[in-house]
Amino acid sequence: MRFLAERERICQLCRSFWQLGWASGTGGGISMRVGDTLLMAPSGVEKENLTPADVFELDRDGCVTQAPSGGQRLTACAPLFMAAYRHRDAGAVLHSHSLDVVLATMTVPPGEPLRLTRLEMLKGLQGVGYFDMHEIPVVDNTALEHELADRMERAVLQWPQSNAVLVRNHGVYVWGRDVAHAKTQAECIDWLCRCVVAMQRSGLSHLTHDRSQPDDVARERAALAAA
Amino acid sequence: MRFLAERERICQLCRSFWQLGWASGTGGGISMRVGDTLLMAPSGVEKENLTPADVFELDRDGCVTQAPSGGQRLTACAPLFMAAYRHRDAGAVLHSHSLDVVLATMTVPPGEPLRLTRLEMLKGLQGVGYFDMHEIPVVDNTALEHELADRMERAVLQWPQSNAVLVRNHGVYVWGRDVAHAKTQAECIDWLCRCVVAMQRSGLSHLTHDRSQPDDVARERAALAAA
Amino acid sequence: MRFLAERERICQLCRSFWQLGWASGTGGGISMRVGDTLLMAPSGVEKENLTPADVFELDRDGCVTQAPSGGQRLTACAPLFMAAYRHRDAGAVLHSHSLDVVLATMTVPPGEPLRLTRLEMLKGLQGVGYFDMHEIPVVDNTALEHELADRMERAVLQWPQSNAVLVRNHGVYVWGRDVAHAKTQAECIDWLCRCVVAMQRSGLSHLTHDRSQPDDVARERAALAAA
Amino acid sequence: MRFLAERERICQLCRSFWQLGWASGTGGGISMRVGDTLLMAPSGVEKENLTPADVFELDRDGCVTQAPSGGQRLTACAPLFMAAYRHRDAGAVLHSHSLDVVLATMTVPPGEPLRLTRLEMLKGLQGVGYFDMHEIPVVDNTALEHELADRMERAVLQWPQSNAVLVRNHGVYVWGRDVAHAKTQAECIDWLCRCVVAMQRSGLSHLTHDRSQPDDVARERAALAAA
Repeated sequence: MRFLAERERICQLCRSFWQLGWASGTGGGISMRVGDTLLMAPSGVEKENLTPADVFELDRDGCVTQAPSGGQRLTACAPLFMAAYRHRDAGAVLHSHSLDVVLATMTVPPGEPLRLTRLEMLKGLQGVGYFDMHEIPVVDNTALEHELADRMERAVLQWPQSNAVLVRNHGVYVWGRDVAHAKTQAECIDWLCRCVVAMQRSGLSHLTHDRSQPDDVARERAALAAA
Repeated sequence: MRFLAERERICQLCRSFWQLGWASGTGGGISMRVGDTLLMAPSGVEKENLTPADVFELDRDGCVTQAPSGGQRLTACAPLFMAAYRHRDAGAVLHSHSLDVVLATMTVPPGEPLRLTRLEMLKGLQGVGYFDMHEIPVVDNTALEHELADRMERAVLQWPQSNAVLVRNHGVYVWGRDVAHAKTQAECIDWLCRCVVAMQRSGLSHLTHDRSQPDDVARERAALAAA
Repeated sequence: MRFLAERERICQLCRSFWQLGWASGTGGGISMRVGDTLLMAPSGVEKENLTPADVFELDRDGCVTQAPSGGQRLTACAPLFMAAYRHRDAGAVLHSHSLDVVLATMTVPPGEPLRLTRLEMLKGLQGVGYFDMHEIPVVDNTALEHELADRMERAVLQWPQSNAVLVRNHGVYVWGRDVAHAKTQAECIDWLCRCVVAMQRSGLSHLTHDRSQPDDVARERAALAAA
Repeated sequence: MRFLAERERICQLCRSFWQLGWASGTGGGISMRVGDTLLMAPSGVEKENLTPADVFELDRDGCVTQAPSGGQRLTACAPLFMAAYRHRDAGAVLHSHSLDVVLATMTVPPGEPLRLTRLEMLKGLQGVGYFDMHEIPVVDNTALEHELADRMERAVLQWPQSNAVLVRNHGVYVWGRDVAHAKTQAECIDWLCRCVVAMQRSGLSHLTHDRSQPDDVARERAALAAA
């Protein structure tokens, strides 16, 4: 079997995602790129019990080049994964149904992104600093797959500084230069969404007791830029 | 031993349920059908330490045909499992004491079902779409087993589109065409109940920021029905 | 080594307790009785890394008959464990620092027990039914061990129908006829305390939507008593 | 490889921290001292997949004496770890990004420490009793590493009775005489922060129902001091 190690990595990640609650009820999805081949976990199966033979192969246009022999269906996420492969040269794209992510999308007004700042965990996201105002786009969910793919593609193009797109009442698509990077980006996004929900619930603010002033921020940014 | 693989699957699921907090304190229950034989985990034992020899066999009328030799008691859930086997041709029926499920039942007024819509995880439930208003029946708990079995049977007949019956202050019965399907249905129900409780606690609404209008929904339903 | 299997069971339970968050930071404790010998995990050690040689042996008067050779200290819980061994013929006594238990103790006014009713999980507790008003005593914590032992003993004698004593801002002592029974009792207590805290936080009531009337309860109790 | 057992212990702790959610998204850090050598996990890697060869060696001045061969980067925590090694003779220093710790820092007004009392889990912290008013310093976060190291050092010197320094919106540094002790201190800090956040969220107080009076406290302290 081609790409056995990569297929096994996908199975191991699916088990881990299921344990984290990101892929319960056959939800969630995992894909990675090996050269010009895309590997994708199938749809509608128990993610924690996946085997390497269950994984699909696609070319970079998103056409299936090798399908599992057991009648598995290609994930409905495939067209959404393609937006990150095409426009961001992703090495892996992950999709999670994390409850905390879904709750976080409910806190964001329509047409606005999720805005995050002054949380150390932001520094785990590619290119983001502690004092930055980081934006992660939120698109509305729809039952029509091609509309969701269109919305995802527009968001990917409109927010080039974000490695993730949130889908309201649904979950998140997140990517990275390889599968390890995509996974750490997904962990940061999840932590941040859980934090947003917990802060909202507790009436806590990460700004209230932070004494950094605009001058401090400017000074620190200048020092970092000069470094 | 007959049905060894299936008995081992029941034991493995019991361990998993215990780890998820669905079967703590000897609570919860698992049953599956193999042809015309029903297999059921016993009552009042540590679910995480079950062995294949602990499992009961019953016929499709619910009569025990083979009992474990160690004096184990048949689960009090047996008559409740039968409602799904008889009226819905279930391949497996699961019973969970998940705290989130119990809390969700406390949010539902008497005589009403739990109503859910516009949550992507609904699509993991058999026959349910994103824009559907899905109803899961809630019956009141009682200390009298035959009354609970009656209530469960009435709910199964009254809500044929639901694969689950919630029992107030108690837990949930959920089924599927086989044990894997029942398990994914149980995971979706649990996610949805946890979501309902979290939204209620945070004052969040899955509708507030969703911009889909009745026209959009009708258009999307038509497109899906035509596909 | 005497009682090797029982010592290993204690180590395995300590690992499980640590994973559940009941024994973090060297907290919590586990003891069991084998005939007239009491086995107790030591104090102030990482509970998840315990070995059989770390376990103390005591006689039924609470005197150490065999101590580990590595300088381990006897648990400060020993005098508290003795109350259940002396007055309730316990086969095992467990002590947990579960956060949910501690939070539940903060909801109970001074001098009152924690009162629980109409939660199915109550039926996992020895001798308790769904409609019973079950009371679990709560004693105030103190830095003086002999005072805490006195309070615990008084509570054990005053609430003979409870298999547990809660200690405010501290945790719970819970016992059973053997270690498996004590463990399932501890799981029920923990589930119930988590439920109490979650209900309080969400403003939910297990009574609001329950339509059982005093007549129903009386009728059901009579039916159960006649069975 | 030198210090193989210690390097393996670091890898095992990193896995455990990742599972606890303290090191997700490459966050968190672990270091320990063996004689005059400091061992430190690298920066920016998946903490759950660390191998012994990934660990750095430093001397007691904080200079790298042996670096992994794979281009790993030294953790940015190194200067912060040094404050505890220099001024408190720590045997191990841990750094966690626990969400509960971060939320707890948001409850503390600027310039004030986190204050804790009358929680049994406090007794797990070195030198702290149940009735003590224990203070853990909170410093503001900054993007400039040398400023954070300065703040950490000042806090270490100003609060000699605390084995930990909280960093607002960021996490916690915690240490002990060896790695097992540091780990149990970290577990107690985490439990206490989770308790603080849960109490704030529920409007619960550990003082409301505690009937201990100033006289009781004084009497108990005297008895303990005399013991």
